[in-house]
Order: sequence, then structure tokens, then C-alpha cells
Amino acid sequence: MPVGTQGTVKSITPAQLREIGPQVILGNTYHLSLRPGDELVARLGGLHEFMGWEGPILTDSGGFQVFSLASMRKITEEGVAFQSHIDGSSHFLSPERAMEIQRNLGSDIVMALDECPPGGLERGPLELSMARTTRWLQRCKDFPLGEHQGLFAINQGSTHLDLRRDHLHQILEIDAVTPFQGFALGGLSVGEPKALMNATLAEFVHELPSDRPRYLMGVGTPEDLLFGIEQGVDLFDCVLPTREARHGRLLTSRGRLNIKNARHREADMPLDPDCGCYTCRTFSRAYLHHLFRAGELLAFTLNTIHNLSYTVGLTRAARLALLDGRFPAFASATRERWITEEP
Amino acid sequence: MPVGTQGTVKSITPAQLREIGPQVILGNTYHLSLRPGDELVARLGGLHEFMGWEGPILTDSGGFQVFSLASMRKITEEGVAFQSHIDGSSHFLSPERAMEIQRNLGSDIVMALDECPPGGLERGPLELSMARTTRWLQRCKDFPLGEHQGLFAINQGSTHLDLRRDHLHQILEIDAVTPFQGFALGGLSVGEPKALMNATLAEFVHELPSDRPRYLMGVGTPEDLLFGIEQGVDLFDCVLPTREARHGRLLTSRGRLNIKNARHREADMPLDPDCGCYTCRTFSRAYLHHLFRAGELLAFTLNTIHNLSYTVGLTRAARLALLDGRFPAFASATRERWITEEP
Repeated sequence: MPVGTQGTVKSITPAQLREIGPQVILGNTYHLSLRPGDELVARLGGLHEFMGWEGPILTDSGGFQVFSLASMRKITEEGVAFQSHIDGSSHFLSPERAMEIQRNLGSDIVMALDECPPGGLERGPLELSMARTTRWLQRCKDFPLGEHQGLFAINQGSTHLDLRRDHLHQILEIDAVTPFQGFALGGLSVGEPKALMNATLAEFVHELPSDRPRYLMGVGTPEDLLFGIEQGVDLFDCVLPTREARHGRLLTSRGRLNIKNARHREADMPLDPDCGCYTCRTFSRAYLHHLFRAGELLAFTLNTIHNLSYTVGLTRAARLALLDGRFPAFASATRERWITEEP
Repeated sequence: MPVGTQGTVKSITPAQLREIGPQVILGNTYHLSLRPGDELVARLGGLHEFMGWEGPILTDSGGFQVFSLASMRKITEEGVAFQSHIDGSSHFLSPERAMEIQRNLGSDIVMALDECPPGGLERGPLELSMARTTRWLQRCKDFPLGEHQGLFAINQGSTHLDLRRDHLHQILEIDAVTPFQGFALGGLSVGEPKALMNATLAEFVHELPSDRPRYLMGVGTPEDLLFGIEQGVDLFDCVLPTREARHGRLLTSRGRLNIKNARHREADMPLDPDCGCYTCRTFSRAYLHHLFRAGELLAFTLNTIHNLSYTVGLTRAARLALLDGRFPAFASATRERWITEEP
């Protein structure tokens, strides 16, 4: 899922996004509730109508941003009091408020509010935090959403397998009453060593119910997407493709390149000869290099179109390989093509 | 003609530009010769190929930018020595070099190099400058261009009708040997009072040959376009629609508005209800207000799409009205719709 934090996937239109072809995009509850405000979005017909995107939208709960962006947070059983990063104004995010905002936004997939513990938190405080997340999950579950909206639960437990299993067990007790629409893995890709994250995924993803989507939050790089899919993950979101694009760092089927580098100045070849996106069909590396060096806004747009096309294309190809029963060959062929020197 | 200074109409793709539908766009010889360099553009297949625009391109001569942007200019009969505004490097622009750059860029319409006297220059120095422009025009004419390239001459003379006529007479003497493809009016819209510019246009435009395009350089606003067309002008260029768009100042069929203003915060209506552009078809003023306030790059793109659509649409409608013999009614109806308060 490309990330559209403030009601836009940065630098591209919904029409360009449609051509790129993601199945779902992500909107940020924290940002949209502060500006322009979720009630205003509701009065204007909801987030789909507001931003001109008729495809599915997942909204996060706002929790991760409150824990990482806002200042002066005060956490109680009721919820989180915080100050806006925009104007310092005071706000309160509770499980009920997180549901209300997402109901106002009218997203298709609604994420439960969880406490987002910092990576590396000790077991004791982590267990207390997870117990609260479970109580908050029940409160989210009790809140009435729109008819078309489905709620996902978020599993915590950092890289402790036993804690993940305990937490999943609690989630599934709530699920047994009325089922969730999907299950997310939170608290990974938050600063812990990559090997620990991968070990946790390898052991744990297959324990999540297989009849509903498994969502790995905040991931990731092409390498991480491929590894996650290998473990059974269905859904990802990450700002990486769009953010890297705005810095001229481009993802290709042969590996990463930086379009600012002088070696691309006269390069009369597409960014990625194996890519069929608008950018690769239409322009040379020399042109993209020129736009970036000249500070032209079009550089952000064309780089974003490519990085998203590459990332969405990678997951689409992985899906087809899975359906055809040839995923291992696909994954190793994809990895073999990535070279460490700049392609 | 929308202006694509550095090989891109700022913030929009060639595909978006095609949908907007201008017949010709303008590229800047000064900027492109300095970065990425006209020889590189030639090696990459010319400006059309480089920037992905297969429609007609007019390039200016670079003179206006050398006179207004570059530093340390030294003007001789041979040409102009100047330093780049990018890195201070030394360059020389002569009539032959201006033709060579435009041949390398491969534009369809090539502008002769003229001396660009500052607005308000006295008659004596102005006459000397115009005489040099005539000698430079002959040198441009003697330079071999590509088969598909047509050269336009530029008439100077500020707001002095007798000087304009003298200069036109000299241009037509050169034209009599081998004809120019069009005629431009330079040295207007350079700071002189609007009433003086308009009086000059009203008296003089019809004296330019009617069998070839008449091009008023650096104009303009919707009001100026309408007035120019009324006097017989066929072709305009101006950065105004694109530059204003990037500042949130939008042109509509009812007059100008500033999308930043608080009154648009909750406005559930299109920017211009009479406009059929992608922006007006898809988004509310409230969304455009939000994007601009949030500093989102998409604001520049959507505002630019609208301002160019409005401006190109105005000239297209004027052309149809002329062909149907109902231009006066069209012009007065258009003017009546413009209101001074924000629409």
C-alpha cells in the first residue's frame, strides 16, 4: 500500500496512482484528524471523495504517529493526551476516538488503536503495554463502524515469540465472538536488528489465521517485501518508495541507483529497462538527472511513479508466482538480479 | 504557449500537458544551453525526444534571459558575453550561437536574436539598439537551420509607432529575399504603462503581415490575451498561469481567486464550475485549499493543470468565436463574467 499521509500520495494524482495499480492505499488518521479535520472530511463525503480515489483505503489508528510525532504525550488507561506537531494544540486519542475518526474518514480497512511500545522495551513493561492494547482492542471492537468498514487487530510482542503467541491468543478470544477482518503485526521494523525481525516473521507469521489477510506494518524495502511474502504476509505499507523517490534514490530490477550521480548525466537509456511505467516508457536517465539537478518539481513526480510502479509490480509478480506455484524460483531469480554496484 | 523553461512545464507531465491541449509550448534557449547543454540535448535526440513532448516547440533566442538573468554582460557588435546565473561560468551569445543552440535543440519555431532594450530607453539609444537588432537579424537569417525549423523575426521600437514602422520596414526588406515564418512583437510588457502597450498594439498589430503568425512575446493575463487577440495577435507566451498556480493564485471564468484563503476551507464546489479540466472535474476547493496549506506537491500540479486549462481554453474559445464571426459578443460576454470580488 502506497502511503497517502495527508490525503495525497505525495506528488502524484489519483489518475497516475490508478495507472500504477496498487490494490489499496493508506491514509493517516493522525494527520487527517488534525488537518483538514475528520469531521470536515466526513461533511465533504469521506476520504475517497475528498482525495479522488475510488479504490480501497486503509487508515491506521493514529497511534504510531501520536507516539512518534506529537509532543507532550500523556498515556492513561483512557487514551493518549498529546499536542499537535502542527500548532501545539491539545488533543486526545482514545480507542473510541480512533474509531470515530476512521468512521468519519470512511476508510475500508480500519486499524485498532494499539499502544506502540518503543523497540527494545523490557519484557515487564512490554507485557503491561500489551495487556492495555488488548483492553483497547475490545473497546475498538465495541465501537460501531460503517457498514462497509472492516476492523483489523494488531498483534504486539516485539521479537518475543511467547509474548506474540500469548497476545494472539487474547486477540483470537475477542475474534471468536465476532471476527476481525484481518490481523496485523505491529512493533516490528521499529529499530530492532533486521535478523531478529526476520526470525520472528519466519517463526510466527504462519500462526496468524490463514483465512484472513496478514498485514506487516511499516515494511518496506524490496528485500523485506520478498522475505515477508515468503513467510506468508499479504499486505504491507511503507513510505520508503515515495520518500526515496523524492531524494532521487530509485529502486530497479537490477538494484538501487541515485539519479543525481554524474554517471547518469548523458545516459540515453531508461531508468529501468525492465520496467513498463510511464517514467521508464517515456524518459531517459539523462532527462531524470537533469530534472533532479535543476530542482524541477516534475522530478519528484516521475521518480515517485517509478518507485511505486516497481514496488507494486514486485508484489503483483510475487502474487502471480504464488498462484502458479513457482514462488521459490521467482524469489531467487529476483534476488539474483539485484546487484550491489549501481546498475 | 505554456512556458517550459528547463525542458519541463513546471510540475506537470507531458501527458497532462497533452490533455490540457496547447498547440505549441516554449522552451528557453538560455537555460537549456547552460543546463543540460544544447549539444547533449542534440545527442539525446533533440528537445522533443528529451522532454517527451511530440507537439510543436518554439524556442526563444536566449537574448531576453541574458539581458535580465545573467550577470556581467558585455554587449558588442559581435554578441553578448555573460556569466551564467547557475555557476558564474563565462559564455558568449551571438546571433550565430543563438541559431546553433536552437538547431541543436531542434525546436520547430526559432526566434532571431534581438537586443532587448530596457523599457523606457530614450529614442537615441533605442534607435542604435534597433539598428543592431536588424544587423543581427540578417546574421540569423544567414545561418542554416534544420529543414523543419522556421525563423521568426522580432520587431522592436518600444511604444514609438514611427520606430516600430521603420523597423518593420527593415525586417520586410530582409523578408523579401527569403520569407520569415512569422513576426513577433518584442519590447512590450517590459514595464511600460499598460495603456501605452495597448495603444501601441491597437495601432500597430494590423500592420504586421497578415499571412503569417503574429506573436506578442511575454503576454499574459487573461485580460491581455483577450485584448491582444482583438488587435489581431495569434500567438502568446507567458509564465503567468504556471507561476501564479504555484502561489495558489487561480484564474477562473469568474475572475481570480486565492486558494489559500480561509473561505475555501470548507467549500464543497469545484474551483471553476465552468471548467472541465482534471482538477475541476475531480476535486473540491476544500481539497485544493488543504493541499496548499499542507504544503503538498500535488497542489502545484493541480493548480497548474487548472490555470493552463483555463488560459488555453480561453484562447481556443476566442479562436472559435473568430472563425464563427462572433468574436465581439464572445469578448464582451467573457469580460462581463469577470468580477472583481473573489468568486
